[in-house]
Amino acid sequence: MQRTLVIDSIGKVGEKILLAGHVATRRDHGKLVFIDLLDRSGIIQVVGGEELSSLRPQDVVEIEGLVQKRPEKMTNDKIPTGKVEVSSEKVNVLSKAEEMPFDMGTETLNLELPTLLDYRALTLRHPKVKEIFKVQEAVMEGFRKAAQGLGCTEIFVPTISASATEGGAEVFKVDYYDHSAFMTQSPQLYKQMLVPVYERVFTVSHAYRAEPSVTTRHLSEAIQLDCEFGFVTFETLLDYLELVGKETLKYVEKTCADILKDFGVEKLKITDKVPRLTMREAQKVILKRTGVDHTKEKDLTPEDEREICKWAQEEGSSDLVTITHYPTKKRAFYTKADPKEPEYSLSYDLLFRGMEILSGSQRVSDYGELIGAIKERGMNPDNFEMYLQAFKYGMPPEGGFSFGLERLTMQILKLANIREASLFPRDMERVDIRLSSQDQKE
Amino acid sequence: MQRTLVIDSIGKVGEKILLAGHVATRRDHGKLVFIDLLDRSGIIQVVGGEELSSLRPQDVVEIEGLVQKRPEKMTNDKIPTGKVEVSSEKVNVLSKAEEMPFDMGTETLNLELPTLLDYRALTLRHPKVKEIFKVQEAVMEGFRKAAQGLGCTEIFVPTISASATEGGAEVFKVDYYDHSAFMTQSPQLYKQMLVPVYERVFTVSHAYRAEPSVTTRHLSEAIQLDCEFGFVTFETLLDYLELVGKETLKYVEKTCADILKDFGVEKLKITDKVPRLTMREAQKVILKRTGVDHTKEKDLTPEDEREICKWAQEEGSSDLVTITHYPTKKRAFYTKADPKEPEYSLSYDLLFRGMEILSGSQRVSDYGELIGAIKERGMNPDNFEMYLQAFKYGMPPEGGFSFGLERLTMQILKLANIREASLFPRDMERVDIRLSSQDQKE
Repeated sequence: MQRTLVIDSIGKVGEKILLAGHVATRRDHGKLVFIDLLDRSGIIQVVGGEELSSLRPQDVVEIEGLVQKRPEKMTNDKIPTGKVEVSSEKVNVLSKAEEMPFDMGTETLNLELPTLLDYRALTLRHPKVKEIFKVQEAVMEGFRKAAQGLGCTEIFVPTISASATEGGAEVFKVDYYDHSAFMTQSPQLYKQMLVPVYERVFTVSHAYRAEPSVTTRHLSEAIQLDCEFGFVTFETLLDYLELVGKETLKYVEKTCADILKDFGVEKLKITDKVPRLTMREAQKVILKRTGVDHTKEKDLTPEDEREICKWAQEEGSSDLVTITHYPTKKRAFYTKADPKEPEYSLSYDLLFRGMEILSGSQRVSDYGELIGAIKERGMNPDNFEMYLQAFKYGMPPEGGFSFGLERLTMQILKLANIREASLFPRDMERVDIRLSSQDQKE
Repeated sequence: MQRTLVIDSIGKVGEKILLAGHVATRRDHGKLVFIDLLDRSGIIQVVGGEELSSLRPQDVVEIEGLVQKRPEKMTNDKIPTGKVEVSSEKVNVLSKAEEMPFDMGTETLNLELPTLLDYRALTLRHPKVKEIFKVQEAVMEGFRKAAQGLGCTEIFVPTISASATEGGAEVFKVDYYDHSAFMTQSPQLYKQMLVPVYERVFTVSHAYRAEPSVTTRHLSEAIQLDCEFGFVTFETLLDYLELVGKETLKYVEKTCADILKDFGVEKLKITDKVPRLTMREAQKVILKRTGVDHTKEKDLTPEDEREICKWAQEEGSSDLVTITHYPTKKRAFYTKADPKEPEYSLSYDLLFRGMEILSGSQRVSDYGELIGAIKERGMNPDNFEMYLQAFKYGMPPEGGFSFGLERLTMQILKLANIREASLFPRDMERVDIRLSSQDQKE
């Protein structure tokens, strides 16, 4: 007998079918036993007797049974299969699950973060945890479509690098045969090198950050979505980043409407024009709104980001706001200073509902200027040999930006911690299992 | 004046336009100077006088000029813009290139591999090198469409792992805060853990291989395209892998026809049914065809792969052939033995025009059996704690496969070395620059 997907059972009332999936829950009502069976297409109620009574959540089963209409009063409007149920006739257990270490049957999985991650292979199965990564998939797909729409070629860049991409001590060292190498901090240098090749590129890459601190919005390994464009002005870059941001969010809203509802996420406010402020202008707005004077600060604080997003929502009806012109010294060496006021750079962040989700800039594209910028940061141009080749042999004016995939997922769903937005988060304390427990074992 | 893309100049005869791009070549004919200008949309001939004579290949320029029809006899059928040219009026050099270290103007870039890679930021600009990675992009897109068509959810897996994924010594070690971690050999364990979550998944990931040897078909870091399916039989897995293989290749042929022609690649032979043989059957076929007796060997040699592909092409008119049932001991611990003949496994390789491009198997899905398989390979189940959780709490019968992106690109275009199919190849001797030169610098 061929398997029927849960969702297809709706059209098979009166037919005998074979279902296969995980047991989500079991409810005993005297001699009647109900289970909810889950497969990739959805969830359905199965009703039966003794043959169901030994089943446990997460058991993997095949069930033969008859599809029947549920009585009027017993229908469930919350699920697509809520008007039918399957009366079980034969159960075949494919894989028996051990007893759950916690209750997986609640609407929200109420676990402390460490437990959520200690049992990751199990907790990812919870319907509401699963949904997070369907949103993540949609972010990815929305970004890809937007980048392709702008004519970007997809490129694949390495993660092992001979020197630290952007300087700084926050790099992971790798034993690379008899040499030392590093995990890339970003795909930055590679995507820039590809601009003279394809003019417009995008890449999905891994970014590593060895900062020995624990925050709710940083991971040691994260997925980064990058675009880079040649022959563009600063204004065009702003248009493009806002376009990609808007298209990505709209795609998520279109394809994940039910999930956003489950998470209590408000409808997106996306305006044709995204409000734009320089960092200094933003600080002045904040001073005026709150009386807090950050106009001398060299960056926006997380509180500032929240406040300026409130402003954009209240004054501009926009969940997005673009901040430009961060101090040149606060940004990476490849960031172009504003020729009109070199203390500030042609840089930008895109903020969404209180948090930065994207960062980027117009780049230094002149070979000599770039060597100067590298030296100014105390770095050795010899360590950027191949990168500098790209500039030595003709580099168009260019710029780009990158999203953090987990950060954006977190922010869309209003998750409390970025670790919830990573299937297998890496941080100072954890690589799947807690690192402390690993040491005890060895 | 707004920029016009090269390709759009065709429709602007008699108009003044602004082009922007790289100088590909310059030809001086007395007072007349011709340059070929390249942008992301194509290449066009610009004709002018003195203002062009100081331009060099790879200079980045803006050129204002008049689009005019070329005289009948002077048209060039090889390029879409071959019926027009631009008569230059004003040239603005955006970025001056240094003199080329070699001739970039030849149809094929005739460089030794080390030079090709030493100057990677430059050599990638050569039209025929660029094309390689347009094919790679198409492989990626074709694979993604096929996987999505089969209902796979896209997942993102980490590259840093607490223990070696599949055992063996060929792993790169990372200094991970105060601990040791490893670069993942494959996304295998993670994609399997996601089967009880989404049932069908695909992932694009990085696979690291620290083997201290240099071959023409292995990289130290490679991109891997993976699928994994729950509730499938071995037969269904074979159908799926062949479907994904065929769809991917067809997508490349459809979208990259001109490139395949440039590389002299023959039209694909793809049959509805892909020929299938067990490894032992393949060895017998080879014995019969060549007299070479490999029927006692535990694997197919590269020569065997070439020979059995010849057989498939000659006897089955197929560029693809699926080989199944490799010896259980030759495959990774998670490979399911054939219950009918446990010495052989429910494993498979897909061969394409002489080389393996895909590998996979039905998996061990029983918790106890899996622990046994891990121990049998001399590994410690404690190092697979989170992976084993997935099996402890109900795992459907499942299996999957993976492609090597570079391997497939190489094989489609008949490249001599896999390094040509990686933008920035990593091997024992090179991480962008040669590692030996790095050491001298330090």
